[in-house]
Amino acid sequence: MTTGVRRRLGVEERRQQLIGVALELFSQRSPDDVSIDEIAAAAGISRPLVYHYFPGKLSLYEAALKRAAEDLAGRFKEPQEGPLGARLLRAMHRFFDFVDDHGPGFSALMRGGPAVGSSATNALIDSVRQAAYEQILSHLDVQNPPARLELVVRSWISLAESTALLWLDGRRIPRAELESQLVHDFAALAAVSAAYDEEMGALLRRMIKDEPPNGPFADLVARLLALAS
Amino acid sequence: MTTGVRRRLGVEERRQQLIGVALELFSQRSPDDVSIDEIAAAAGISRPLVYHYFPGKLSLYEAALKRAAEDLAGRFKEPQEGPLGARLLRAMHRFFDFVDDHGPGFSALMRGGPAVGSSATNALIDSVRQAAYEQILSHLDVQNPPARLELVVRSWISLAESTALLWLDGRRIPRAELESQLVHDFAALAAVSAAYDEEMGALLRRMIKDEPPNGPFADLVARLLALAS
Repeated sequence: MTTGVRRRLGVEERRQQLIGVALELFSQRSPDDVSIDEIAAAAGISRPLVYHYFPGKLSLYEAALKRAAEDLAGRFKEPQEGPLGARLLRAMHRFFDFVDDHGPGFSALMRGGPAVGSSATNALIDSVRQAAYEQILSHLDVQNPPARLELVVRSWISLAESTALLWLDGRRIPRAELESQLVHDFAALAAVSAAYDEEMGALLRRMIKDEPPNGPFADLVARLLALAS
Repeated sequence: MTTGVRRRLGVEERRQQLIGVALELFSQRSPDDVSIDEIAAAAGISRPLVYHYFPGKLSLYEAALKRAAEDLAGRFKEPQEGPLGARLLRAMHRFFDFVDDHGPGFSALMRGGPAVGSSATNALIDSVRQAAYEQILSHLDVQNPPARLELVVRSWISLAESTALLWLDGRRIPRAELESQLVHDFAALAAVSAAYDEEMGALLRRMIKDEPPNGPFADLVARLLALAS
């Protein structure tokens, strides 16, 4: 399966190569449908040699997932400048890039399943959610979030996950539309909470005070008013 | 562990009793932390006898989950009359009753984990989601939902799940507030979608045309307008 001279790789280098090969295959098919034989063939090494670096498929899967989780968590990082709507929109764009690149692996992971529902993988998923949560709080400039804000942010993160999963199932709606829709959903969920809670109201006003008249939040409000009239 | 005469139960009767006992224990602690010994003790029978009715803990867990899933799916059923907001609110109330009654079991199930992440349990979770989805479509009186409506309804169902899970973690927000907040969230997600799509706009107008001036949707709009002014 290889051509020409095969360079000897160091242990860590070989592990990283196998992780990359596995992620590439998981981006095309569910991890459940990818065998160690295929990973070995794609890496140009023997099956026993794969087991030399990873004791089993689960350990290779977990290592691949760890790299993907670090990648994904990094995509929520965004400079603390400019209006919030535009920041969230850029983060959503990078999030959908990730989902687009890792479709079948992302679906299998988030839906759980035989090969993927271990405690270790659940802990990794939670670590990405936590990273996204902390990023958003830092953009809102809030250190000690009240319970209602925590609920809005965390439930919005789960909304982004489920929206991405539904999108992957047939891709019937353009992803750019879903990226801005999720930014609007964030504002909408915050507004619903703010409609009944003074503290959230103050937070919402602070959140949108720097929004430009041509930004995503102002656009939404104008369209909603048009819809209501 | 039993008092007085122990009546002999038929096979199906005994299975149903064990399922009930297991659900009761899972409502107090995560299934992972409940042993077959405890279930046997609580049912007043021997451990080997439990295995006579269920070959292993997973099969008992799956049977218990099946009963809970049927229970939960039934709670979304609602007569097709009266304004939509009030219908959704009653369904959310029954949903939170269920979550309240089955706290630790519900959390463990939805978060996945060693004992609970099997394909059979995932299929059951999906069947409840599907039942809720079809119920909502029937209330909207839509047979062939456009992709955007499907996205709104399904992603709202996942929002209800994550809101319930976050509520269980500390119960820091009164559940009645979350029940009506979720009804508002449904309207908000539909409105965001309708702001950018003509078909969803027509659907939203039809959805709210029978809403009474003192209903949950009208209340939200009034509060949002007050917030914006």
